[in-house]
Amino acid sequence: MTITSFSQDLKINSRELVDTIHSTADMFGAKGVWGSESTQTGVCRLALSDLDKQVKDWFIVETKKLGCTIKIDECGNIFATYPGKYNDALPTGMGSHLDTQPTGGRYDGIYGVLSGLQVLRTLKENNITPNFPITLVDWCNEEGARFAMSLMASSVWAGIKTKEEIYALKDIYDNETTVLQELKRIGYLGETKCSYKENPLKCHFEIHIEQGPVLEEYEKKIGVLTGAQAYNWLNIKIEGMSQHTGTTPMEFRRDALLATAKIISGINEVAKKYKGLASVGKLSLLPDVVNVIPGEVDFVLDIRHQNDEGLSHIRKGCQEVIEEACLNKAGNGVKLPYSIIDPYPYPATHFDKSLINIIDDSAVAIVGEELKHKMYSGAGHDSCATNLVIPTAMIFVPSRDGISHNPKEHTEPEDLELGFRVLLESILRYDNARLS
Amino acid sequence: MTITSFSQDLKINSRELVDTIHSTADMFGAKGVWGSESTQTGVCRLALSDLDKQVKDWFIVETKKLGCTIKIDECGNIFATYPGKYNDALPTGMGSHLDTQPTGGRYDGIYGVLSGLQVLRTLKENNITPNFPITLVDWCNEEGARFAMSLMASSVWAGIKTKEEIYALKDIYDNETTVLQELKRIGYLGETKCSYKENPLKCHFEIHIEQGPVLEEYEKKIGVLTGAQAYNWLNIKIEGMSQHTGTTPMEFRRDALLATAKIISGINEVAKKYKGLASVGKLSLLPDVVNVIPGEVDFVLDIRHQNDEGLSHIRKGCQEVIEEACLNKAGNGVKLPYSIIDPYPYPATHFDKSLINIIDDSAVAIVGEELKHKMYSGAGHDSCATNLVIPTAMIFVPSRDGISHNPKEHTEPEDLELGFRVLLESILRYDNARLS
Ligand SMILES: NC(=O)NCCC(=O)O
Ligand SMILES: NC(=O)NCCC(=O)O
Repeated sequence: MTITSFSQDLKINSRELVDTIHSTADMFGAKGVWGSESTQTGVCRLALSDLDKQVKDWFIVETKKLGCTIKIDECGNIFATYPGKYNDALPTGMGSHLDTQPTGGRYDGIYGVLSGLQVLRTLKENNITPNFPITLVDWCNEEGARFAMSLMASSVWAGIKTKEEIYALKDIYDNETTVLQELKRIGYLGETKCSYKENPLKCHFEIHIEQGPVLEEYEKKIGVLTGAQAYNWLNIKIEGMSQHTGTTPMEFRRDALLATAKIISGINEVAKKYKGLASVGKLSLLPDVVNVIPGEVDFVLDIRHQNDEGLSHIRKGCQEVIEEACLNKAGNGVKLPYSIIDPYPYPATHFDKSLINIIDDSAVAIVGEELKHKMYSGAGHDSCATNLVIPTAMIFVPSRDGISHNPKEHTEPEDLELGFRVLLESILRYDNARLS
Repeated sequence: MTITSFSQDLKINSRELVDTIHSTADMFGAKGVWGSESTQTGVCRLALSDLDKQVKDWFIVETKKLGCTIKIDECGNIFATYPGKYNDALPTGMGSHLDTQPTGGRYDGIYGVLSGLQVLRTLKENNITPNFPITLVDWCNEEGARFAMSLMASSVWAGIKTKEEIYALKDIYDNETTVLQELKRIGYLGETKCSYKENPLKCHFEIHIEQGPVLEEYEKKIGVLTGAQAYNWLNIKIEGMSQHTGTTPMEFRRDALLATAKIISGINEVAKKYKGLASVGKLSLLPDVVNVIPGEVDFVLDIRHQNDEGLSHIRKGCQEVIEEACLNKAGNGVKLPYSIIDPYPYPATHFDKSLINIIDDSAVAIVGEELKHKMYSGAGHDSCATNLVIPTAMIFVPSRDGISHNPKEHTEPEDLELGFRVLLESILRYDNARLS
């Protein structure tokens, strides 16, 4: 079966997308050199930092050039709307994020926003007025790296977090600066309500790098996503007793770090048993001194599974591991108190069937049946938030060696271009389908 | 057998010592409230901080009041010398340190310096001129908490470290500020050579809280120390691969923190096997982000044993544990590179026999045979450094519940007073013995 393409007769400059990815990386936060080429660095552009402000300013300038109108909402999201023929109808949405990890790459999130920009540039260059307006969104703080809630502002928009909750989040690096302070400081505390009800979209398309090894393994070019893993970030505190490392016999200790070490080993087994994931990426000791047994350890346990049931098995297994470790059998057997806060559970995502079909058809039109692959996402994305309230679907392109959240994150330019063309095709196909 | 006491006819105001401990704690860094009494806090007075400068200034004022002459050496050590009859002879030394842990108590080190001060105050009040001058030393940065080398300036004085080495040490909290900068900034980069050759002492007495559970367990009041444990602080770096926690299957990982967790569990077993100690108190992740598998973990492994042979067994056992963990069997089996630097091995200390006897006799004179106990020290002390070059010995008093390096560190006032009286007796007894 061949599928007609809605974009095949357009003048398409997909190379411009790749150039924009690298020129913006160079201007706004290039960091972490891993090769001799000038493009071989990552990007460090933490949410609501000066660099995030600069790239947001740039984004507004570029979309305005194309005739877009701009709305900034109360949570720092930017909505750039390209006009259509029926401007009273809800806009077709597409988006991703321009913030990065501290040791991030050039593509995570950025690729999605700039591909959306390239869609609008292509419409402009070809003098196309779509049937319906198209809104490109830069969602604020998707990573949760600096303010530890991923999909932050898209979650408020989708109504599962309140703006008050996110305003109060503190910078993990100084434990002081809040989201609200930073939104004000960089001038992105907008007036538009952050709500799918008051600032609605018809749907949400997102293209993203896979950040995992699957497409590469199967030698596929395009991932057509059916959903994303359920995940949960548990804030855990283990309380021991800070004592002198040189005078306290091993058997008398209440070592919060030893308990944590047993937990980290244990959750690894739990994740494997249930074919999911469990990781500790963030951890701190109190005090943090060579010759003091840590009296307190705080860490975040990141657990994930393809389905909600699997996630709750892992959650339960981890709880047991924690209980067991806190019995402090290696020490004096005085139980270590612990606490677990899970402010941020995300259920498994199942994308919209008709949007999945649009993307599937578009992928077939651009790369053919052989090179596309139905799959689900390991990572959370803003689309997991939007999917709670509007039809949503996603496209993936391969990540070299499955590496992400690392400056070495890489996708071949040809693959970036192919992915963009699938997005363009999907947007036009959807715009057309809305007519009937 | 009863032993005559050299101090029994003196007017002794040992309560003044306890008062000075609390008044200086209140003035210079009280922190970490643990009870409702005003004395129920710890002290945070990091080496070469503003508070350390203030307490050093105070120390100089107080010793000058007694007629002491002051020398400040190139490493921030302060030598306050109380004159004797034979001032050409080498001074009898006593000392300890006024710096603390970030979560330190009121006694660790401080008790030793202030007991020395109380010895001098007692001589003054009783109009006693000793045969030989007596030098009270405040050794700079014993803890190694802020600049991670314990017994820092006493080690330079003893010739096993150079001043250049310690000048270059960096503040672990900002990884920038050096010892040299801070010595200059607080005005304690003195001109006296930091050397036992050029600024010698005849011997070194030190009184200290035990910081462990032994005296309390045996219901003894005075520890007569025969030596101190061998110890070593190994700086270890494990290199993994920073990757996305949500997209990287457990089997594909190179998780530097998982390897570290296995090491922390493993060294615990090694320490128990060889009846020594092994602890990790300081640890950091790179990056340190919820959804990134740590690509690098740096930590310090603190190992100790009563004798040098035991320490080298533990060292070897830990090396094997590290090797094994770095095979990364739980991940993709790609070996994780690691490095171990051990800049700071301290061999087991064996104090001077004749000084031990002086202290033993003094303890018998003050508390009787029944209440003193021969033992060795779990922690390192400035006396471990001085013992390398001059006759040295130490006195311990009990620590409640063996707790130290914790604001809750506590010794009963009566026990503090008894310990001081043993120090006073030892100094007078030694001063007398030197005549013959
Ligand atoms: N795509 C991505 O890295 N999102 C951040 C949230 C997550 O950790 O899954
Ligand atoms: N006494 C004391 O805490 N000294 C610091 C060095 C060590 O850790 O043993």
